[in-house]
Order: sequence, then C-alpha cells, then structure tokens
Amino acid sequence: MGRKPACVCLVSGGLDSAVAMAVARSRGFACHAVSFEYGQRHVAELAAARRVCESLGAAGHRVVRLDPSAFAASALTGAMDVPKGRDGAEMARGIPATYVPARNTVFLAYALALGETLGTGDLFIGVNAVDYSGYPDCRPGFIAAFSAMANLATRAAVEGRIPVTVHAPLIELTKAEIIRLGASLGVDFSLTHSCYDPDSQGRACGECDSCAIRKRGFAEAGVEDPTRYSLKKRS
Amino acid sequence: MGRKPACVCLVSGGLDSAVAMAVARSRGFACHAVSFEYGQRHVAELAAARRVCESLGAAGHRVVRLDPSAFAASALTGAMDVPKGRDGAEMARGIPATYVPARNTVFLAYALALGETLGTGDLFIGVNAVDYSGYPDCRPGFIAAFSAMANLATRAAVEGRIPVTVHAPLIELTKAEIIRLGASLGVDFSLTHSCYDPDSQGRACGECDSCAIRKRGFAEAGVEDPTRYSLKKRS
Repeated sequence: MGRKPACVCLVSGGLDSAVAMAVARSRGFACHAVSFEYGQRHVAELAAARRVCESLGAAGHRVVRLDPSAFAASALTGAMDVPKGRDGAEMARGIPATYVPARNTVFLAYALALGETLGTGDLFIGVNAVDYSGYPDCRPGFIAAFSAMANLATRAAVEGRIPVTVHAPLIELTKAEIIRLGASLGVDFSLTHSCYDPDSQGRACGECDSCAIRKRGFAEAGVEDPTRYSLKKRS
Repeated sequence: MGRKPACVCLVSGGLDSAVAMAVARSRGFACHAVSFEYGQRHVAELAAARRVCESLGAAGHRVVRLDPSAFAASALTGAMDVPKGRDGAEMARGIPATYVPARNTVFLAYALALGETLGTGDLFIGVNAVDYSGYPDCRPGFIAAFSAMANLATRAAVEGRIPVTVHAPLIELTKAEIIRLGASLGVDFSLTHSCYDPDSQGRACGECDSCAIRKRGFAEAGVEDPTRYSLKKRS
C-alpha cells in the first residue's frame, strides 16, 4: 500500500472545519491539521480542535499562536460585544461584528508555508458562503484569488512541481447539507464547538449567530443536535 | 496641519526595507513597522530593524513571532548551509537555498490584517526583482496577485472604504539604484544589516549572496559602504 499524499487542513474546532477534514480524509489524504490561537474569546475551540483531530486520525496537529494585536477590531477578540438573539435576516445584513481582519488570508498563508515545507500544495478550509455569506474571506472569489496568488508565491508551485489547490469542499453547501455530509463521513459532532460566547465550562450559549445557525442546521438536516448548551443562559 | 495617513511597512532590518520605509515617509505616510521573528539565523536583523525604525521615525514597531516550524525548509532557518563565494551568474540560476517557504505571503497577510485594524490599506514592502530575481514572492506578478486577492479579503476593501495597495517601490530598481535612492532620502545604511551569516558580534561575513550583492551595489552606486565586516572571515 502506497503512502497517502499529505494535505494541510485548517481546523478551528468548529463543525465546518471538522467536516472539511473528514472530506479530505475520505479523498485519501493524510491530514496535517493547523489551528490558531489569536486571542479569540472562544478558546474552547482549541480544545475542540484537539478532540476533532484525534477523532479523525490526523497525521499531525499544530496550534500556532498569532500576535492578537493585528486582529483587535473584532467582537471575537473581545473588543466588541457578540451580537445575540438575531434572526437570519439580521445576520444576512452586511458583514458581522464577529468579522476578524484578514483572518482567512493569514491562516491560508500559514497553511501555504507549512504545505510547501511538508511537500504538499493541497490545503483544505471549511469556509462556506451560503449561511454565512457576510465574511468576504469565505466567498468563492476570495478562494479563487488566493489560489491564483499562491501559485505565484511558492518555489514548489513556480517550478511546476507542486501546484497549490485550495479545497473549500463546503463552500456551496447549506449548514444542513454540511451536517448531513459530516454525518455520512462519521464526524462526531459532539466533539465540535461553534459558540462565540461559551460559559466557563465550554457550554454553548445557544443565542449567538453561530449557535443559531448550528441549531437550525441540525433541525433542517434531521440530525440529532449533540451540543451541550448552557443551562443558565437558556432558562 | 492634518494627521498623516497611516501605512504598514514590512521592515527586516535589511537595506531594501529601510529604503522602502524611507520612500513611504517621503510620500507623507506615518509608518507602522512590522518585523518578524521566524527562526531565521540572522537575528542581528531584528536589532537592525529596531535601529532603522527609530532612525526613520516610525509611528510604531511590532516584532511578531511566527512559529518557525512552517518555515523549516530553508538555509535561512538553519536547515541547510548558506551558500558562500558565488558569483552573479550562480545566484541568478534558479531559486536560492535561502528561499523561505511562502515568506512574503505570510508577512503581507499579517500586514493586511494589521492595516485593516489600523484603518489603512497601504502596505509597503522592499522586494526587488532585479538583483535577486530568484525568489518568486519578490516578482511583480506575485505582488499584483496578492493585491487582487487582498481587495477581496478584507471588510474594509470589500465595502469600498479602504482599498488595498501593495507598494513595492523598489521592485524595478537595481541594488545600486536602491542605494542611491536611500542616500537621497537620508537613510543611514550603517544601521542596516544584510548578511545571512553574521559573526557573534553581528558583523557581516562579506561572502554570502546577500553580502556580495550589497557590496557590489555600494560600489556601483558610488556610495561609501559603511558595513562592518568580520575581520576573521576576511583574512
């Protein structure tokens, strides 16, 4: 049996990136996972990322610390309040307060460097533009532009040895479709964390945009939601 | 007098980035400098970066530590030997061993995030494609592709408020032209550091590709070379 080709998977600990890594695995890749710590409020995500990587048999998992000062202008890093109790229409309006400056550009740039070091140009990212189209760096045009840039950026690509492909297998899927796909690939959703504002025990608030989209996704997919919600906040 | 517009300057401590920052200053920008520590052998560069920022009156200077494991496959991070005593023809052949995987992509991505946080899309980088055309991420095509990607990546750009411009004012200049430009803008070259393999006191080896290009640049520019060379290695 030949050795599996390597890929780099961006893994946040959330539901989407877990499904994206499961897709990479199903396509025969050995998955080298990368997570980032950048001052986000929801450090519970990093614990979830470790559980997801173990569960999906990642070939490796690095947690990279990024200087948070570059990412200060976001509700996710504590500079603003996380919006609560909004409906889909409100979320769809404009770019959310939880936007983090150039986040996916920084994450993919790092994945590109790591990929070249490991000898692969296959990078997986769990972005999707359907339920959460507010983030510019989750849209198909951004992913295409990053790929074009990346193929001019590395020695391995320019020399024609290792072209770069940014795989965004969820980009055209709804949250319900992502959950069904993950379920079919054996993803244990109880290990994943989506909430932007968890309690001290890592339980989801059930009210932020991310919780609302996740809840609705499970309902629409007809898959049982294994999320642990904060009892206090739900009462 | 109105407040100066901000820009982000990538500053390595080398000669080129010092001149690029001097160009930004001459264009009326308040310069927010960023340097990176990524396991490079020549940490003397970071001390030089601090001196250059002070000398040119930077509005701020951040030194960002990047996990060096992503950049392992390079002579600059200690995994290979730094080539010595090569002539221009040898240097021109192919991509140098001192290539660092996706370095400028990671650096510019970080500058993009910081710029959006500071409210600017003006990013300055001291790349040049003439004397050192071996690095793919120093070429005009890469800079253009990064700019195109960046304008799809950030909220400020997508909303039309702050378009991103990657300024590479040295990209078409020879080393001699860069030195003449820097001299005309008052850059103190004695503060800059170019050597890939300095001695324990930070003195240049005089023999690596970077020293060879720098030496020749000063000679061709007719500007006195203030570099401190290692006595031992020159004997």
